[in-house]
Amino acid sequence: MTGAAKASPPPGANAAERPLAIICGGGDFPVALAEAAVQAGRSPFLIGLAGSADKRIEAFPHLWLRLGEVGKFFDALTERNIVEVAAVGRVRRPELAELRLDFGAVKRLPALTALFAGGDNRLLAGVARLLEREGFKLVGVHQVAPDLLAPEGALARRAPSAQALEDARLGVSVIAALSPYDVGQAVVVAKGRVLAIEAAEGTDAMLGRIAALRASGRLPLKGRAGALVKAPKRDQEMRLDMPAIGPETIAAAARAELEGVALAAGRVLILDRQACARAADGAGLFLHGMAS
Amino acid sequence: MTGAAKASPPPGANAAERPLAIICGGGDFPVALAEAAVQAGRSPFLIGLAGSADKRIEAFPHLWLRLGEVGKFFDALTERNIVEVAAVGRVRRPELAELRLDFGAVKRLPALTALFAGGDNRLLAGVARLLEREGFKLVGVHQVAPDLLAPEGALARRAPSAQALEDARLGVSVIAALSPYDVGQAVVVAKGRVLAIEAAEGTDAMLGRIAALRASGRLPLKGRAGALVKAPKRDQEMRLDMPAIGPETIAAAARAELEGVALAAGRVLILDRQACARAADGAGLFLHGMAS
Repeated sequence: MTGAAKASPPPGANAAERPLAIICGGGDFPVALAEAAVQAGRSPFLIGLAGSADKRIEAFPHLWLRLGEVGKFFDALTERNIVEVAAVGRVRRPELAELRLDFGAVKRLPALTALFAGGDNRLLAGVARLLEREGFKLVGVHQVAPDLLAPEGALARRAPSAQALEDARLGVSVIAALSPYDVGQAVVVAKGRVLAIEAAEGTDAMLGRIAALRASGRLPLKGRAGALVKAPKRDQEMRLDMPAIGPETIAAAARAELEGVALAAGRVLILDRQACARAADGAGLFLHGMAS
Repeated sequence: MTGAAKASPPPGANAAERPLAIICGGGDFPVALAEAAVQAGRSPFLIGLAGSADKRIEAFPHLWLRLGEVGKFFDALTERNIVEVAAVGRVRRPELAELRLDFGAVKRLPALTALFAGGDNRLLAGVARLLEREGFKLVGVHQVAPDLLAPEGALARRAPSAQALEDARLGVSVIAALSPYDVGQAVVVAKGRVLAIEAAEGTDAMLGRIAALRASGRLPLKGRAGALVKAPKRDQEMRLDMPAIGPETIAAAARAELEGVALAAGRVLILDRQACARAADGAGLFLHGMAS
């Protein structure tokens, strides 16, 4: 799965200016971020994590890496005079034993081992520290491509009901309460009752569960009710692993017969805002950026 | 579904002594509690909630009621000189609009309406207040049948690992953090990471999710790992809706390839402790009552 970087010029201009490495996990955000970087006059270099990243990253200068290839990663950045690094997309969290470590990884083994205890936030904060200790600068999606973040206010035609706004605030509060436990950036709340809390299963699976519970009559809700609430954990490492939604999330929320989707404005990634708004309008859902 | 109480004497003796009404939700606990009450020389009168309680309650003197038949409920207690009331078993939470209210319900409508806002704990505490205002006494399973509660220490042969005990403590702490939100009496924690938090789906569905995530390779765990942790919410109305497990819970934990099950001693119901221990031993799981 590993391969050399392509030498072809990136789409867009000013390729030589301020190169940006993008560590690419799964999903559509890596390509969206690369496109936004090009728009901003930057030269993205995509580092695809084998087993997680999508083939489409190959439309840009790129390099495939396995998770254990830490030395190769740092060498690639150094060779290209890249200082700034962003990371986006889902990464399956590996067992330490699964990793095939290269020499650069073995040299850094104590620091790497320490990453593998505890929840995601500790893992990610550790990755950030590790990068910075080696002289690189971790930059957030919000710094490179602010348009990928949820803005404040209505994003679709339907306005949230007073009940839904109250549910959204309750959801944000639940996510905050769970912050010390490094879990849960999404919940479903309906009429003051917390129906689902996301942990390892992911947002779409959580919404699928609500759809199934409603279909089986196990939830006493009639018609559109409740909100999917997404917000970062308190002290979330915002440069890595921000909560994210895309058109598929909106579709899953519609299948769960929710009234809409509430996002912490400025702190949740939206893939293709226009497509999300269209999906919300098509299904009659609200899509709302909550001020914090 | 409603029917008159049978006049047949209950199994066991001393039927006339200290009658006890048992409001019966779903599952096996109502019959287990009735049997324990008979063992304790009490005379149980089972009130089956139509749509929730099992037919097997008919082995005891009983009455079927719909949820809206509040007047009929109080009349039945008064006629039989019953003062003490226990409640056990799952009840599908109804929409207020679904209820067919009898006159006794309509008379109490403001108090009943207030029950239908918020989470389960508020609902149950309200039911308790309502009973006591009418001169009845709500008693807990722990008062009638202490043997139905998880004892402290090992309940099966396998001992929890140090990691599993640490995971169990983390789980208890997560449940405590969620207490203000009236949700979550069960979580799954493995190696310091919270993998699942129960909300409306129930414990068995949550464990099924872990089994599915593990089967799909989305959780980086090898072999038996993690603990199902069950504990009551802080300030849980212990006379109603205590967290509960039974042999099926143990089987579901085994399918999720957990290392075992940790329970808050004295504060979690165990259906058929011997069968649970056998199930745990058969699957090689620990089953542990944590001191609080």
